[in-house]
This record gives sequence, C-alpha cells and structure tokens, in this order.
Amino acid sequence: MTLPITFADVQAAAQRLAGVAHRTPVLTSRTADARTGARLFFKAENLQRMGAFKFRGAYNALASLGEAERRAGVLAFSSGNHAQAVALAARLLGMPSVILMPADAPAAKIAATSGYQAGDARSEVILFDRYREDREALARRVAAERGLTLVPPFDHPLVMAGQGTAALELLEDAGPQDHLFVCVGGGGLISGCATAAKALAPGCRVWGVEPAAGNDVQQSLARGEIVRLPEVPRTLADGAQTQAPGRHTFAVMREAVDGVVTVDDAVLVRTMAFLAERLKVLVEPTGCLAAAAVLEGAREALPDLRGARVGIVLSGGNIDLARFAALVAAPG
Amino acid sequence: MTLPITFADVQAAAQRLAGVAHRTPVLTSRTADARTGARLFFKAENLQRMGAFKFRGAYNALASLGEAERRAGVLAFSSGNHAQAVALAARLLGMPSVILMPADAPAAKIAATSGYQAGDARSEVILFDRYREDREALARRVAAERGLTLVPPFDHPLVMAGQGTAALELLEDAGPQDHLFVCVGGGGLISGCATAAKALAPGCRVWGVEPAAGNDVQQSLARGEIVRLPEVPRTLADGAQTQAPGRHTFAVMREAVDGVVTVDDAVLVRTMAFLAERLKVLVEPTGCLAAAAVLEGAREALPDLRGARVGIVLSGGNIDLARFAALVAAPG
Repeated sequence: MTLPITFADVQAAAQRLAGVAHRTPVLTSRTADARTGARLFFKAENLQRMGAFKFRGAYNALASLGEAERRAGVLAFSSGNHAQAVALAARLLGMPSVILMPADAPAAKIAATSGYQAGDARSEVILFDRYREDREALARRVAAERGLTLVPPFDHPLVMAGQGTAALELLEDAGPQDHLFVCVGGGGLISGCATAAKALAPGCRVWGVEPAAGNDVQQSLARGEIVRLPEVPRTLADGAQTQAPGRHTFAVMREAVDGVVTVDDAVLVRTMAFLAERLKVLVEPTGCLAAAAVLEGAREALPDLRGARVGIVLSGGNIDLARFAALVAAPG
Repeated sequence: MTLPITFADVQAAAQRLAGVAHRTPVLTSRTADARTGARLFFKAENLQRMGAFKFRGAYNALASLGEAERRAGVLAFSSGNHAQAVALAARLLGMPSVILMPADAPAAKIAATSGYQAGDARSEVILFDRYREDREALARRVAAERGLTLVPPFDHPLVMAGQGTAALELLEDAGPQDHLFVCVGGGGLISGCATAAKALAPGCRVWGVEPAAGNDVQQSLARGEIVRLPEVPRTLADGAQTQAPGRHTFAVMREAVDGVVTVDDAVLVRTMAFLAERLKVLVEPTGCLAAAAVLEGAREALPDLRGARVGIVLSGGNIDLARFAALVAAPG
C-alpha cells in the first residue's frame, strides 16, 4: 500500500524549513531521568516560532504552492495554533491569508493571528458565530469567492511531512531513540514524526498520547477503521479535541505507530508544573501529553522504559499566562 | 595593571566545561525585537544544569583543584544558586561538599542542595541560625576541622572565568554583538562575560543591570572604589542582594564594563511575564534584570539600541512555581 508520505517528503520539508523555522533545542533533565530510569530527550517545540510545531507543517504546505495559488492566497479555519501558523507562514511568503475563527475564541489568540497579518491589506481574520453558522460552508464560500487554497490543520501530506521535521531534528541532534512519544490530536504531528523516526532509527517504537476523554485515534487503531467520537472531548488539551483522525494521518498511523495511550487532565497539570519547575519551560496542556505519559500517566500500559533512550515532543507553549498560573497554583 | 582574569582563562574554563555544562540555547523573539527595534539574542542560562549559570563557575573552580584538595572537599555558604552549583559540581567530580545554609532558607532549596549530595556520606548541608551564629566564623571552623577549600560565590578568578563561558557561547553561536546586557550581583557573571565579549567583539559595549534597591556596583564604579551598602537590599532579585562587589570582580568591571543601569521590581515582574508568554521560558527575578533593562526599564539611561545586535543573559530560572504564579497573576 502506498502511504501518503515517505521519509523523502520529510527531508524535502526540512530543506524548505531550513533557516525559517527554529531548530528548537533538545532539553534534558536529570530529575526526569532519575524518576523514570530512562534517558529522556525533550524536543522543545514550545520554543518554535509562534509557539508550536504547527508552523512547520503550515510553512511546508504554503511554500509548496504554485505561483497562481500563492498570489491568490490561503484560507484556514482554526481557533488554535494552526491559525497563527498559517497567518505567520503566509506573511513570510508574501501571501494573503484569511483565517476563520469563532467569535468567542480567546481574544489573545485572535489578536496574535491578526498581528501576523499586520500590514497586508489582503489578509484578515473573519469571525463567525459557531452556534449559528456552518464553518465549512462559510469556508467553501469565502475560498470560492477569492480563489483561496484551503490549508487543513492536519490531514494533508505536506502538513504531515512538515511536522515530521521535529522528529528528524530530534534524532539528528540527540541520536537514535528506543522510543518516541508524541501527542495526538488529528495525527498530523505523529504521522510525520513516525515516518522520520522509523527511517532514521528502524527499531524505534513510536507511541501516541491522547487525552483520556478524547481517544479517537486509540479507538480507531484498535478497530482498524476511523472511529468518530460523538462529541467534542472535554479536556484541558484543547489542541487534541479532534473527534476523528484524518484519512491520510490514519493510513500512516496504522503502519508506523506502535500504540496509543491516554492520560487525564490532572496528570497534564502536574506535568505542566514539573516541566516549568525542572526544565524551566512553559508548555501548554496539549504539549504536555507525551511527557505526561512517560513521567507518570500511562506507565502500566507501556513497556518498561528503564535504561531506554526516550524522545518526547513538547509540542507547544501557547497558554494564557494567567490560566497557566491558576492551573499550577492548584495542581490536581 | 594586571587583571585577575584574561580571555585565556575563559577559554580554559570552556574546555573544562565542554560536555559537562549544557551549551544552552540562544532564544530570539520577533515580538521583543519589534518592541525595541533591535535584534535581541537571549542566552538561556535558566536552562543550564541546576537552573543557573552558577554551575559554570563552580565546576570550573572545583575542576581546577589539586589532588589533595579534591580528596578533602569543598565548602560553600549560600542560600541560593551557588549552593546547588557547588553541591552538583562536587558530586560530578567525586568530591565531598559541605554547604552552610541558613535554617530559614526555603525548604525546596535545602532539599535540592541535599539532593545533589545524595549517596555521598562525606557531604552534607549544615544549617545555621543566621540571627545567632556568625556564618563566616562557622565556615572557617568547619573548613579548618575538615581541611575543606572554601569556594566563594563570585570573587574568585576561576569562578569569574567559568561564568564568562556563557558570553563566549553566546557570541560564538549568535555572532558578534553591539551590546551585551548582564545582571549584576557581586559581579562574577559580568566580569567573566565582559572579558569574553571584549576579546571576541572589541566594539561590544557591556552593560550591567542591578536592582534599583541594590546599586552597589553602580555606585562603586561611579566613585572609583568599592562602595558597601549599609543594608541587604530589599528586592525580588534575591540573587543580586549583595552589598558590595568583590575585589577581583571590581577590578575587571572597572576595565571592561561600559556602564551599570538599574530597574525596579515591578519591571522585573512584567519582564518575567513577558519572557514566559513570548519566549515560553521560566526566568527567576534576578535572571530578568538584563532583559528588563532592554525591554523597558532603563532605556533613557542607555544609548539608542535601534538597529543594534543585543546579547542578553537570562541568568537563572530557580523560582518556586507557586511564587512565580502569584507574581505573574498580579503583575506590578
């Protein structure tokens, strides 16, 4: 079966991103190592441009567009990191961007997205009422009117390949790993990362981590087909509230992901506090998923990690500081 | 006049520290650049081992001891990062360490220091009553009884040279800078950093930043002699509560530091919040001094930084998370 992406696609993405994306550092912590008996390597994508790995995939997709598509511009709908990623990537490439955001999205996120569009009169954030308007119909209409190319948040080969450069760098900088832990929303990050990891370190086992309340990928892999959750999962991990994996991401995950485990919100908050105290970095709840599984949340569902080299992707750091302060001040 | 350290001493320290200290990343932020009109390069020493640059100087000093001194061990008194730095460096070098700490120091700091000594029966933390006992007399007595070498927190050429490796790496990794901003307590960090900066980028102007409440170095440089503040300064920047620079550090600062500016605590808190929100890193108040001066606190006392390349040392990240949360939740 032909998979949607290969390692060559990740390598091509790495070339496009060279000098544009940050090569984020790999952090280590003796305390975390002592706690797990493993050697942990944290890829700090919270230190990526716009604060999350999403920049990689968005830029890779936009940089691959043809001349006419570039001139017309791109459209994305997102209330989260994908919105900022597309807005920033478009600005860097001199392309117009239109971002559809729910009118009740956090003001800080709307402002950050608009901020990346500043100075380009062709770019804008369009707010919609998510209780009364059909987002997809609105997107289709705006895209058709303006000739925009839709950039999906995860289920697109160029987006997936771009995200995979995070694991490519991790393995290049920290050496081969026995295990790699990656958070899972729609599966864009893990499908790219698994593709890179299996190519660079064939023995590396790749684990996805979902919030316990939203284990659509775990269910889908167990069932062998895409399972759609009936409702938007309630979890602090707002970047992993997807109800179903994508067609492309599911195809890659079936092949390249060794298992999916889950952690609950209380573990995410404790992990967020641990990472701030020990690694001195701010990580948003979704970005803590992979670390949470290794540090405490899902060890009974995992093989013994003692003595192993374990890569962990910290996927993003975009959390309102007041909210961060409130969460860590009263850990679960 | 012969200075206590030269660039060769910093280079020798870099060799001793290679593979032992983290080569911490240099972070950038377009938001910070836009706000200042400069290009800012933040050296993230909060991501250093034990959470602060202090590890560099302590390890450099301990690794330079002779065989007999190593066997006997070292002694330090500190309630802050120097305590942890000496304890960790001693453990790595297989040396005993005795750390004198006030009995009312934060429990977390005492525990962290003891933690680095774990497993070595010859090492210990000795708590003293700082209202009833003379710390210096106690230190002399313990050192004499056990044959320990005292490791001062800043006024020692090997400590100063070790701290200078932070600037050495910054300039190697981010290129020459027009200005370098460094926080100032006793002057250990800035004297090493200024020595490195002036050697690698002769045109680089080096600025010290002190808390407004504790400007002993600013006064000393203005007066041309060491000025001792009558009281321990009251400031959030607990790593810069020194009352006077050292003899060695003052000699270097007179030659190599272009000026000292001050910032107040409210600016430190706003800077701590900014660095967490934008750079996604946790920096303790003392560690924010240099960034605070550039971002807002002392611009009227500084030359125009627009268009300049500006290095900034974020010196440490050891702040209790509950305290961090409380401070940023109610910024000044």
